[in-house]
Parts: sequence; C-alpha cells; structure tokens
Amino acid sequence: MDNNIYLDNNATTMTDPKVLEEMIPYFCDKFGNPSSIYKMAHTAHNAIEKSREVLSEFMGAAEPKEIYFTSCGSESANMAIKGVLSANKNKKHIITTKVEHPCVLNLYKELEKEGYITDYITVDDNGELNIDELKEKVNKDTALVSIMAANNETGAIYPYEEAAEIVKSINKDTCFFVDAVQAAGKIKLDVKNTKVDLMGISGHKFHAPKGIGALYIKNGTRINPLIVGGHQEKGLRAGTENVPYIAGLKKAAELAQNALEYENNEVKRLRDKLEQGILSNVKNARLNSRTSKRVPNTTNIGFEYIEGELILLHFDELNICASSGSACTSGSLEPSHVLRAMHTPFTSLHGSIRFSLSRFTKEDEIDFVIENVPKVIKKLAKISPFQKELTALLGE
Amino acid sequence: MDNNIYLDNNATTMTDPKVLEEMIPYFCDKFGNPSSIYKMAHTAHNAIEKSREVLSEFMGAAEPKEIYFTSCGSESANMAIKGVLSANKNKKHIITTKVEHPCVLNLYKELEKEGYITDYITVDDNGELNIDELKEKVNKDTALVSIMAANNETGAIYPYEEAAEIVKSINKDTCFFVDAVQAAGKIKLDVKNTKVDLMGISGHKFHAPKGIGALYIKNGTRINPLIVGGHQEKGLRAGTENVPYIAGLKKAAELAQNALEYENNEVKRLRDKLEQGILSNVKNARLNSRTSKRVPNTTNIGFEYIEGELILLHFDELNICASSGSACTSGSLEPSHVLRAMHTPFTSLHGSIRFSLSRFTKEDEIDFVIENVPKVIKKLAKISPFQKELTALLGE
Repeated sequence: MDNNIYLDNNATTMTDPKVLEEMIPYFCDKFGNPSSIYKMAHTAHNAIEKSREVLSEFMGAAEPKEIYFTSCGSESANMAIKGVLSANKNKKHIITTKVEHPCVLNLYKELEKEGYITDYITVDDNGELNIDELKEKVNKDTALVSIMAANNETGAIYPYEEAAEIVKSINKDTCFFVDAVQAAGKIKLDVKNTKVDLMGISGHKFHAPKGIGALYIKNGTRINPLIVGGHQEKGLRAGTENVPYIAGLKKAAELAQNALEYENNEVKRLRDKLEQGILSNVKNARLNSRTSKRVPNTTNIGFEYIEGELILLHFDELNICASSGSACTSGSLEPSHVLRAMHTPFTSLHGSIRFSLSRFTKEDEIDFVIENVPKVIKKLAKISPFQKELTALLGE
Repeated sequence: MDNNIYLDNNATTMTDPKVLEEMIPYFCDKFGNPSSIYKMAHTAHNAIEKSREVLSEFMGAAEPKEIYFTSCGSESANMAIKGVLSANKNKKHIITTKVEHPCVLNLYKELEKEGYITDYITVDDNGELNIDELKEKVNKDTALVSIMAANNETGAIYPYEEAAEIVKSINKDTCFFVDAVQAAGKIKLDVKNTKVDLMGISGHKFHAPKGIGALYIKNGTRINPLIVGGHQEKGLRAGTENVPYIAGLKKAAELAQNALEYENNEVKRLRDKLEQGILSNVKNARLNSRTSKRVPNTTNIGFEYIEGELILLHFDELNICASSGSACTSGSLEPSHVLRAMHTPFTSLHGSIRFSLSRFTKEDEIDFVIENVPKVIKKLAKISPFQKELTALLGE
C-alpha cells in the first residue's frame, strides 16, 4: 500500500492477498476453457461451479443455479434492468430512487428516452428512503423497481426487503432488483427470504479484483441476456468465463462472510472513532446521513465553507485516500446527487468527504487522520472565500 | 501445463507468465480506482492509458482514443452490433456470414426476432468467403455488416478489408464490424488503412487472461453504450476498469506483436508438419478448409467415419488437448455450422478435429501427436459402425 492510509474502500478495495493466491493457478497452469472436453477444462469448470455454490451461500440464494457471473456491478445492473424489461415489453413504468448509483440512474435516463415512464422515490434529510411513496407509485403497468441495499456515498442501509413486500403486495408481477454492491461484505445478505427477484454485487468492493461481479436471478424470473452468444451461464451471459477471477470471487466471499462480525464490531468501532474524532475537533464539520442504519465502514462528513476537492488534495499530500461523492461520478463538477436529494445545505454540500474503511484499516491510521484533519481544515479555512461565515462559526 | 500437449489455443491460451507478472502489482499494491483523485489512483489511470496506446498500435488504430476496453470478445461484438443499431434505428437490414462465431450469429437471430432483415454471406467448399455476394445484398437500408477476420474453426482468413471496400462503395453509411478475435496475435492488424468502423478482439486468445477484450471504434462512429452507468471509457462502457487485466492485455499485445514473425514461421512450420504428418499417415483423414489463406496456427482435419468426441476422449487419455468445433458451441450435438456451410461431406463432418498451436508449442509435442493420432484412429476404426466403408477406404 506504499504507506497510504486507504479510506476509500467504497470506491474500490485492495485485493486480499489470499484472493490473489487462489487465482494464480488458473492463469498459467489450470487455464483450460471451461467448455472444453478434456480434463484440464473440467478443472476450470469445477472451479466455476464451486464458486457458484459459495456465492449462493454468500447472497443467501435458494440454489447455486440462481447465481450468474458478470464482469462488474454495472454489468449486473444493466443485465438485470435491461434483461427484465426486454422480456416484459408490454409494461412501460419503472421506479427507482433518487439516490441510486449512476449505473442505475443513467440507465433509467436512457430508458426514459425510449419511452419508459419513471418515478423516483425520495429520501429524507437523514438519508432514509421514503418507501411509503411506493404505495402510491406502483401500479399494474410497473415492470420493475430498483432499490439499492446500501448507499455508496452515505452508507445508509435501505429497507429493500420491506420495499419488495410493498411492491409485490400491489403488483406481484413487478420485478424487484436490488443493487447490493455496497452491502455485500458489510451486512448479511439473505435474498431467498425476501421478495427480491434480482440482486447484483461487485467483487472489487469486498477485496476481489475489479472486473468480476455476480447477479442473483430468482428461479422463474423472465429475463433476456445482455451479452448474447455462446451457451455460457445457461445462455444468459456469453463469453469465455473469467475463471481466475471467479475463483477469486469465491475466496473473497468466504473471507468476507467470515469477517462480517469483525466488520460490524471492530471496523464499526474505528469508523465511529474517526467520525467522533473529527466531529468533536472540527467546529465546521457536520455529519451527513445521521441515520443509525448505516453499513459499518462508512461515514460522510461535510466541512462547511470548504471545497471538497481541496481537502482531498491536501489529504493526498499526507497519503490519506478519501473521496467526495462516488468515483463513478468524479470529473463532474456537479455536487453529489445523493447529498442534494437529502437536502444537505449548500454550505457543506461542496465540502463533503466520504471516509470508507475496511478490515485492513488500522487503529494508528485512524489516529493519524483524526490528528491531521483539523489541521487541514484550519489551513483551508484561511483561504476560503467565506471568511465572515467561518469566523462566526469557528469563533476565531 | 501438467504435461498436457495443449493444441486448443483457439479455444483459449495459457496466460503468458510475463503477462501475469505485469498484472500482479495492480491487485494488492497499486489497486486504486482509476477515477479517484489521489496519487495511487493516477497510477492505475496511467496504466490504462498506456495500455490503450499499445493496443492502438497493436490493432493499427489511428489514435489511442479509438480503443475501448471490454470484458471479452463477446462483449465487444455485442457492444459493436447492438450499439451501432441502437444509434441508427431507422435502418433495419443487417448482413453477416454463415460462418461467424456464435456471439455474432446468435445475436443476429435475436435481432431477427426484433424485426431486422438479415442476409448471410456463404462460403465455398474450401471455406473461402463469397464476398461478391455483398454486391447484391448491400442496399440503402443496410445498417451493419459483420465479417470475421479469421475463422475460429478452420483458421481461414477472410478478406474483410476488401469486403469493407465493397460495402462502403455501395452505402458509405453502412457500419462495418470485424470480429478479429481469432486474427489478433496471429496476423498483423492495420485497421486505420481499411474502411472498417469497428473491430473486436479478446485477450485470452493471445495469452492474456480470460475476461478482457477491446473494441476499436473509429472516430466519428455513431454508437450507444451496451453497459450504461459511470463515465468510464468516455461514457461508452460503464464499470470500474479491470486495471490488472488491462495492464496484462498491454503486455500480451506487445509480446504477440513481437512474436508475429515467429508465429508465421516457426508455429506455421509446426502446424504444417502436424498437418502433413497426419494426412500422410492416416488414410481416412481429410483436410477441411484447404485454403492457403489461413492463420498460421490452425488446422482442421476430418477423420471419415469416426466420431469426433470419441477421438477427443482418446486424445485426453494421452493428455492431448484439441477440440471439435468451437468451445462456445460445445455441449450441442449439432455438427459444426462452419463445416456444414463449407459442404463438408457427412462422412467426415462428425469426425472433424481442430488442432490450434501457439508460440509455446514444442516440436516434440507435435512429434508425439503425429505418432499417436494414427494409433487412435486405427483403434476407433475398429469400433466404427461404418466397417464396410472404412475397409474400402483403408484397404484393410
């Protein structure tokens, strides 16, 4: 890690060295095409099916055959949403939330252009989803509802199980997709005991590499493939299987499952220490998403009258890696759509920083950040154009 | 390789150990999300852009920005075909060949269901493409023509450059896609000096891992994304980039480029030795695709009145890996659509075996195969239901 203090685990994670070790034999040794007929190919095929079993347990599927491997969380979401709509072309109404990941929101915008009618569920000032709005919005023309399990920017956990119950009680034929990319490895998934039809996850958010994902598709769900071609993944996802990463995903799921307790105790303790350390030492710091229902690794803190990008650049000089908003929306000058949906005041909207920990985060790293954040903010306060407001706030 | 004699390199290849070495640092060390703001992320970003430059040279693109990374050859083909059609919705006629890979053929079948009118160019008995048929088929409603650069089953090289000239001379607005998956690393690609608009390749066919591909899109081509979401790949392919494999693809392209001469001399010599060795020692062996325009590593030989799957199982006992048809169509009991299109006689259609070499193939491996193929065929001839025909043919 080159001595980096890596607090951007919601953007991507370090591949666990144990995951890398699991993958290595499949590159230069057991490299057969899983579809081929000879022994070396069986080895590759068996690695895939073993991984499917483990992922099935990890997501709480009823059966391994409900798990399909994809190349990323965005592919999982596109495969789910486009696949379900393509197989149910007569219905033209779709619902999601205002705070989804761009892979869902931007896809919905494309679908609007194709004639779909969309509704967006709102969140309150704490970042909690107003799921009661579903009761008014779901109707007999509703093809699909997409709700994320946990928000990438704030860490807020959404009650997708309850939302699925509401949706199915109004229209049992409406498909329900959950983007669980930010929940997998942080909270327990148990999809078989919900009314969810499809659920997507991404390996690189829980210490597998970038470039591997999975999609749970409940048995009996009508869906067309996104990538058409060979017979792989029962004809629902063509392309020679990425055997090394699929084997790695298995290991990552096992490790994450075993670390869930650590995540919810120790990682949460460090996150809370970081959060309290900053909030109590920085007068113009403000906690975004004050809901108690949060994944254990994430905090999002607004620094009033300070520019977020400037904070991050100063962090970088200290080798602290954090982010403002989602990596997938970086480069855009727009403030976070998630924080705006929560009515975050403009005073801290542009200075909001997400810290996201992992099981590799160490206590002395958190101590270092707590010690240095006040210094960085103090320095930047001096060059803020909002001197009058800051003086009133900081009393200096 | 566990002492396997691996002659199935058109199905997949061993990851070159040098490629693996190139990828390793990006898993546990330089693992930043390329979209993030800090130094560690720049390292990842720079690895991607360096790879884009090398791939651009490898494919002969005019500029690196014409290269887009995908997760496989099938994704490249789906992205190209669906993407172009989605951006040109008014035209409803599409053309391809009878001998394409399933990722193109099965997609065309899906498009037929959606109302597209399709035409399929035929091949002659030698496996050469009847591209003159394009002159009759292309019209002002033709949205897209897809022609592969080299056939996966026979190794036949198709004159896609000439085909593109014909297509554009009739309708300059028709898009031309080339599936170059089996050509990349075997013959030189120089796409900028052709009228080709899009060209797809797959890393695992030239010693990069399974799970990485690229798509060349000529500047100015109208195309919509297949995977919608974040801003990655200039908004044309969402999803956090698979940095390790993209870095590996760069190395694989460099190595393949440097090995082209070896491929066209030494690998070709071994392929020809294998081919002649079998044809001269096995009386019921028949060369499929007798065209001289073939990639240097592939031969496809029919063994009359013998069942292909049985041959492969006997090969497997000798640790010889080869295939009948494409790995992507395995599991199907249908004989090869490529050999059928070439009017291969039924006597050898079911007993056709593809041998595909690589730069890792050794002379003693070829000697072993030449020595053992006649024994295997002799053994299987004894249990063939076609004893009368075999006796006439073998004179025994």
